[in-house]
Amino acid sequence: MGGFFAVASKQDCVADLYYGTDYHSHLGTQRGGMAVKSNGGFTRFIHDITNAQFRSKFEDDLDHMRGRLGIGVISDYEDQPLIIGSHLGAYAIVTVGRIANLASLAAEVFAQRATHFSEMTGNAINPTELVATLINREATFHEGIRRAQQRIEGSCSLLLLTDQGIYAARDRLGRTPVVLARKAEAHAASMETCALPNLGFHVERYLGPGEIVRVREDGVERLQPPGQSMQICAFLWVYYGYPASSYEDINVEVVRNRCGAALARADDTQIDVVAGIPDSGTGHALGYANQAHVPYNRPFVKYTPTWPRSFMPQEQRVRDLVARMKLIPIPHLIRGKRLLFCEDSIVRGTQLKDTIQRLYDYGAKEVHMRPASPPLVYACKFLNFSRSKSELDLAARTAISELEGDANAHLDEYTDPVSPRHTRMVDHIRQRLQLTTLKYQRLGDLVSAIGLPKGKLCTYCWDGAEPCASGSGS
Amino acid sequence: MGGFFAVASKQDCVADLYYGTDYHSHLGTQRGGMAVKSNGGFTRFIHDITNAQFRSKFEDDLDHMRGRLGIGVISDYEDQPLIIGSHLGAYAIVTVGRIANLASLAAEVFAQRATHFSEMTGNAINPTELVATLINREATFHEGIRRAQQRIEGSCSLLLLTDQGIYAARDRLGRTPVVLARKAEAHAASMETCALPNLGFHVERYLGPGEIVRVREDGVERLQPPGQSMQICAFLWVYYGYPASSYEDINVEVVRNRCGAALARADDTQIDVVAGIPDSGTGHALGYANQAHVPYNRPFVKYTPTWPRSFMPQEQRVRDLVARMKLIPIPHLIRGKRLLFCEDSIVRGTQLKDTIQRLYDYGAKEVHMRPASPPLVYACKFLNFSRSKSELDLAARTAISELEGDANAHLDEYTDPVSPRHTRMVDHIRQRLQLTTLKYQRLGDLVSAIGLPKGKLCTYCWDGAEPCASGSGS
Amino acid sequence: MGGFFAVASKQDCVADLYYGTDYHSHLGTQRGGMAVKSNGGFTRFIHDITNAQFRSKFEDDLDHMRGRLGIGVISDYEDQPLIIGSHLGAYAIVTVGRIANLASLAAEVFAQRATHFSEMTGNAINPTELVATLINREATFHEGIRRAQQRIEGSCSLLLLTDQGIYAARDRLGRTPVVLARKAEAHAASMETCALPNLGFHVERYLGPGEIVRVREDGVERLQPPGQSMQICAFLWVYYGYPASSYEDINVEVVRNRCGAALARADDTQIDVVAGIPDSGTGHALGYANQAHVPYNRPFVKYTPTWPRSFMPQEQRVRDLVARMKLIPIPHLIRGKRLLFCEDSIVRGTQLKDTIQRLYDYGAKEVHMRPASPPLVYACKFLNFSRSKSELDLAARTAISELEGDANAHLDEYTDPVSPRHTRMVDHIRQRLQLTTLKYQRLGDLVSAIGLPKGKLCTYCWDGAEPCASGSGS
Amino acid sequence: MGGFFAVASKQDCVADLYYGTDYHSHLGTQRGGMAVKSNGGFTRFIHDITNAQFRSKFEDDLDHMRGRLGIGVISDYEDQPLIIGSHLGAYAIVTVGRIANLASLAAEVFAQRATHFSEMTGNAINPTELVATLINREATFHEGIRRAQQRIEGSCSLLLLTDQGIYAARDRLGRTPVVLARKAEAHAASMETCALPNLGFHVERYLGPGEIVRVREDGVERLQPPGQSMQICAFLWVYYGYPASSYEDINVEVVRNRCGAALARADDTQIDVVAGIPDSGTGHALGYANQAHVPYNRPFVKYTPTWPRSFMPQEQRVRDLVARMKLIPIPHLIRGKRLLFCEDSIVRGTQLKDTIQRLYDYGAKEVHMRPASPPLVYACKFLNFSRSKSELDLAARTAISELEGDANAHLDEYTDPVSPRHTRMVDHIRQRLQLTTLKYQRLGDLVSAIGLPKGKLCTYCWDGAEPCASGSGS
Repeated sequence: MGGFFAVASKQDCVADLYYGTDYHSHLGTQRGGMAVKSNGGFTRFIHDITNAQFRSKFEDDLDHMRGRLGIGVISDYEDQPLIIGSHLGAYAIVTVGRIANLASLAAEVFAQRATHFSEMTGNAINPTELVATLINREATFHEGIRRAQQRIEGSCSLLLLTDQGIYAARDRLGRTPVVLARKAEAHAASMETCALPNLGFHVERYLGPGEIVRVREDGVERLQPPGQSMQICAFLWVYYGYPASSYEDINVEVVRNRCGAALARADDTQIDVVAGIPDSGTGHALGYANQAHVPYNRPFVKYTPTWPRSFMPQEQRVRDLVARMKLIPIPHLIRGKRLLFCEDSIVRGTQLKDTIQRLYDYGAKEVHMRPASPPLVYACKFLNFSRSKSELDLAARTAISELEGDANAHLDEYTDPVSPRHTRMVDHIRQRLQLTTLKYQRLGDLVSAIGLPKGKLCTYCWDGAEPCASGSGS
Repeated sequence: MGGFFAVASKQDCVADLYYGTDYHSHLGTQRGGMAVKSNGGFTRFIHDITNAQFRSKFEDDLDHMRGRLGIGVISDYEDQPLIIGSHLGAYAIVTVGRIANLASLAAEVFAQRATHFSEMTGNAINPTELVATLINREATFHEGIRRAQQRIEGSCSLLLLTDQGIYAARDRLGRTPVVLARKAEAHAASMETCALPNLGFHVERYLGPGEIVRVREDGVERLQPPGQSMQICAFLWVYYGYPASSYEDINVEVVRNRCGAALARADDTQIDVVAGIPDSGTGHALGYANQAHVPYNRPFVKYTPTWPRSFMPQEQRVRDLVARMKLIPIPHLIRGKRLLFCEDSIVRGTQLKDTIQRLYDYGAKEVHMRPASPPLVYACKFLNFSRSKSELDLAARTAISELEGDANAHLDEYTDPVSPRHTRMVDHIRQRLQLTTLKYQRLGDLVSAIGLPKGKLCTYCWDGAEPCASGSGS
Repeated sequence: MGGFFAVASKQDCVADLYYGTDYHSHLGTQRGGMAVKSNGGFTRFIHDITNAQFRSKFEDDLDHMRGRLGIGVISDYEDQPLIIGSHLGAYAIVTVGRIANLASLAAEVFAQRATHFSEMTGNAINPTELVATLINREATFHEGIRRAQQRIEGSCSLLLLTDQGIYAARDRLGRTPVVLARKAEAHAASMETCALPNLGFHVERYLGPGEIVRVREDGVERLQPPGQSMQICAFLWVYYGYPASSYEDINVEVVRNRCGAALARADDTQIDVVAGIPDSGTGHALGYANQAHVPYNRPFVKYTPTWPRSFMPQEQRVRDLVARMKLIPIPHLIRGKRLLFCEDSIVRGTQLKDTIQRLYDYGAKEVHMRPASPPLVYACKFLNFSRSKSELDLAARTAISELEGDANAHLDEYTDPVSPRHTRMVDHIRQRLQLTTLKYQRLGDLVSAIGLPKGKLCTYCWDGAEPCASGSGS
Repeated sequence: MGGFFAVASKQDCVADLYYGTDYHSHLGTQRGGMAVKSNGGFTRFIHDITNAQFRSKFEDDLDHMRGRLGIGVISDYEDQPLIIGSHLGAYAIVTVGRIANLASLAAEVFAQRATHFSEMTGNAINPTELVATLINREATFHEGIRRAQQRIEGSCSLLLLTDQGIYAARDRLGRTPVVLARKAEAHAASMETCALPNLGFHVERYLGPGEIVRVREDGVERLQPPGQSMQICAFLWVYYGYPASSYEDINVEVVRNRCGAALARADDTQIDVVAGIPDSGTGHALGYANQAHVPYNRPFVKYTPTWPRSFMPQEQRVRDLVARMKLIPIPHLIRGKRLLFCEDSIVRGTQLKDTIQRLYDYGAKEVHMRPASPPLVYACKFLNFSRSKSELDLAARTAISELEGDANAHLDEYTDPVSPRHTRMVDHIRQRLQLTTLKYQRLGDLVSAIGLPKGKLCTYCWDGAEPCASGSGS
């Protein structure tokens, strides 16, 4: 998905920028970048973080960076920040989101023979550079950002580092979050609130959908008020967000605890132990255990010293081992036990099936699974969301395909938790995964656990709902 | 401390060696190394892992390594493995332990004008090279290892990669563990059992104290039976070991759960939430929560994506921030709560004091602390143990010094949990840390939680006991 | 200055591209870059070559490059090649030259709010990206290149790597050279002919001024015939070009030999030894020695193993040493000798003065200097020419300033070799450098040595002549 | 072969050490190393210089090196300097030479079970570590070095960096040179005098064979006077040494000029041009041209910007091109010419044959060859000398083998320049290389050109003479 961080400080901002950007590392695995602005112009560094952590890659750059304004990004695909020269002056830009209409927007600007993209590799246009192109069509940064928000289908939150301060803008429908924070000598804009407390920042306020502000060392100025409609991604709480983060002032770990509690209230299965599939399953499982008064234990521990994220070796002969490396089983805590696992969701189910088999191999008596969200039926088209890439590979769709001979049949029934088709689908998945029992969270319970009105949440991947479907100009 | 891993395989051993060594990363922060042996001789790589993870540092080397016998090490100080040429032939060696009489052993061999050390940096002798010197004095590897075991004061477990297979030897008193494991096509020797399951290895047996074996692709041969006396470090379960590891067939997580349960049984404080200081406090806290039927929660989460270990930036201007970076508070789970924390132990208490203050800053109503082990009174002299370096800086000794004007006064009383002096010391520490209550684990409860006879455990740091104090030759 | 190389081959072109670009290393010191095109799109690498050689920097990239079309560049300033996306499709571009009207061209395109530059660092626009902007305004690559040639003041030769082959275009007035070459399986376009023989290429023909061709694996197509006017830089033969290169089919070493012979014919000074200041002075000096029948010797040898070019250490404390490091004196060949040195030209004279002083320190009896070209009076405004950056620092201008109190006085007389003012100026320089005698080459002799009509040569830096001064649109 | 450099300074010595060692780069291609000593102990860096230059590899280390005593080395095979701990204290050591009895010396020390070698790779003992072992057997550095000199067959010059200053020792028979130099604030020991002038050092004196000195910041102390016998390698002047270097106060370029002159005096071939095969042929050719009053020209120029030494790419697909890459032909200077080339010697003749063929391809009318030394008949056994590795592959031996059916037949006649067999051998080589004429230097002329008594020169590779054949103890 990606995440960003910005600081405007009365002193040098580099240390805050470095640590603040680093705290977004859970949101992306490919690229990291930072840019600062001083009187001498921009200083920018971009590194591949596929095989090493953000901080270790940028450590040597710190000596070469000085400035009181800076922006940083963890990026899943493209190189960022870009340094752009234009009639608006030179500026640096980072974006997070997904531009569904990338090709048509590019064709449009090419047709004017008036622009080009120079940050290409192979034949892929850098989406952040496309956003810059849209911004540059207008007379001011503010109008340019509005144009970009209106023209982009999908989502786009962004930061601009300019001569006049840092512009921060949240996606038109608020699909991704942006928060403002402050301390005595500095103001910050961040996607994740977990980046703030250890740097001494306090949350000031959450930007509304489409809101645009300019952040300077001495304060934040609102340039564009928030819009009426919001479609913030519900999966941020279920899976993507860090437990210590909050969105719309609602904490992730608290929501996960409530999700687990809701699962427990709907359940009366006799079990010995509740456990979570790390990392995101932990918060759900704790909520279940505390509600059900069943011991919470760790039959799997993650080897965090070197498997913090999925760093992939380039060696073909060792790749086969990687899938099972992150989690280490503790046989003493598995043997003879009736185990109930909480998990954020079941995507394809392939790796989960292996994990379950290993539990039986180590002597588990029963294995129960409780996903904290309903079955995934639709692939996300609003964010760069690696969880649900191939719609027809989703465990639910595979089950539907096997039951109906058509992965697209009766989707309205299959997404209705009280319909017989839904029940049959869940049981089909249960059998495939060799689970003792399988119960999904109901969407209503999930929405309640988050605590926002359903209309403000994007729940598309579960129920296909698209309340603000109009793309541009509205 | 350091850890090692060895494989003898019927096929190429490099992938197993790479992953198996990597699973010892929690035991050291400075150096990593691997050596393999093939017909073409030895191939060895050593890297600084201070600022990056073992795997990312060695990934490029994999292409250049081929062999069916290999040894690897995570090392806290010295470069390892060394490749040694001698009358025994060429071999590679790694050691884990602490050679207390390093200077006198070196002086002895220098006095014979018969040897030298070439793996020096500055003026420090490489302890592993010294061990090789002792081995080379004898006619066989087996006798050489015995000589080393007898002459070394402190501790020393080791691996030798030779023409005749891999020699594995556990420290004379078993202060550090060595385990043998197997799968269809290979045998392994490891310090941590957590390295085994994901590579398909099953525990074969735990080496006894002083035991020496030779590991080959087709089996393991015992060269020296285990000795009578054992002094395995109790802190392995409390703090150092990975939750998924077992020593003497006793699992770390299980022991920590029992430690927490013992703390709960001895306690009736009214609290809202039990929590652990990650990482080692988690297992203790889960045991407490399950025993006391109090909810377990995470008011702090560790930022594992990039703070898996304490990678230290070299920049002076950012070092000040590091101490508080690893753990992120969740204010929603702190405000207005009566919190009880489990921790492995209190060393100096400096950082803990800051952490406690932050909890109050975020609105904690009460903060209770329950260390899973008794007060640390003596610094370890048997292992390279970073936890307890300066004896007089230990929180207990500081308290004694302030109470008595002499940090060494009445230590026998201060280590006796039922003495008034002990009570006074604990209350002194509690006040300094601004804790609502503070109760340490009793040593008896800790020994019971581990489950070995006290005489087989080293508990020196808590009670100063040295049952097998004779250094050499016994 | 910079140089480029292109290959279109029936086989993989990477090895030829790698070596062919490398043979342009004498033309730049900052950046190197290569791009190849295959069915999978573009693969591009750019490296800083300030502190290491082109080949060592790109060696690891070779494995990742495959393709039958490729372009490479040695660049003095900007990162190249750029990969550009546009209505013409995606393409890679490199340029060599100097865009004097960069700022006004950029302002023009910015004013249309229609483009931007994303390859900026600090506030500097990448000139190659600006050239791409000009190209993209037209309907075809051919028309686009013509527009660029017409609009650019200064000079610009370029290569485009496209779906339709490689476009090669020589600067409108041919200030820099481009040559076409072929072998059985490939065609090449190159700036330097010295890149050709060791790769098996034979010179096919030299592009004329402003000529545009498209190079494909099976042949070369002329898209734009050469223009009438030519202003090729005379300094290419005197200093910049490699001895093994030819321009307009005239070899550099041969011209230098003729320059030296001309100097000898105009001279009757009694000397013991002729020598050259390496590297460019060598060819001139050999011509002098052979003509004058005086022994040629090497009182200075260049330490080519590690001083091939001026790699500058970043350490402040060692920078002071660098200036005198490249050339090593041989005292045995200096002591008691009357030495005559040939040099390409005298720029500021600062380092030359030190060199002369060292000769006296080592016991030289007389030191005579014979520059192969007339005094430099004007700084080049047509090429990125590091030789003559600050016009008023030129040795000739300094002398004029000291003689007249005005560095710009009577320039027409000072550039006239038979005028008294010229004589006075030369003697002033001679005294400043403590030379026994100093005689400059006459411009007519230099032009004769090259062998082209004076009207086709740019001699601006010596006589200020600008025969084709019209900038754009003509 | 390898080369070394040492500095003892009243100030920090790092810059001098860095540049002084770098000036030995022509003597080795594999490893470079430097060590300095300060109060904090030794700081050492070793890098692979196979694919990059010494300076670029060590540039980043300079910040971490401080000290007033330092030694550096360019090494063809082993990692150096080693840091050795021993009863003599800790010290750093570098050696240059060839230990012919390496295996037997190693077996001897192993047999005592008293030492080991830890700087091994594969199964190869580091010869420098072996030398340290010999030194450590004695009570003082001085006696230890003497022991090493006496026991080593082959050659060994060395430097020790110790608490008591830097020990410098020349090989027992002076096969390799060591020179002492000074400036106001420092003393140096060097193999090449070309390292001295640009650092401000003046030659103080040349060490005699076997001489041992101790160099400190305030002076040099002689510990061991020079021996009677000398066998300095004559090839240092012919090929290995840098033109700006002197040995025994005899300059290399001067000797080469005299070699060429001697060749010219013995010759009356009608030619148009004299040329040298760069680099070592240049000095010989200049001597020939000046003596014969024939123009010297450069039909081949070396591409020094990136081919200063033979950096080999690891890519298999490009290796085939490397052989012909260094030298670029200038066809204008070849066509229709009668060319005479001087070369240091003919080893196997393989590449020379290709070069000659290329000359004919470019239109050469005649090609004459004049090696500056006699035919190579014996492979060097005293130095690590890459020029003459496989004795039977030498062009002379191949010719003998083809003429006699036995490469070892009548060697005394073949090495006698007035014998018919010698004449037949030379003509055989001439035909094989397709040369118009071929005349070798006579050994007497070579010895005269050098100017030392023949008895002090090692001429083994030409005539097999071994005047000081006794290996040890003499």
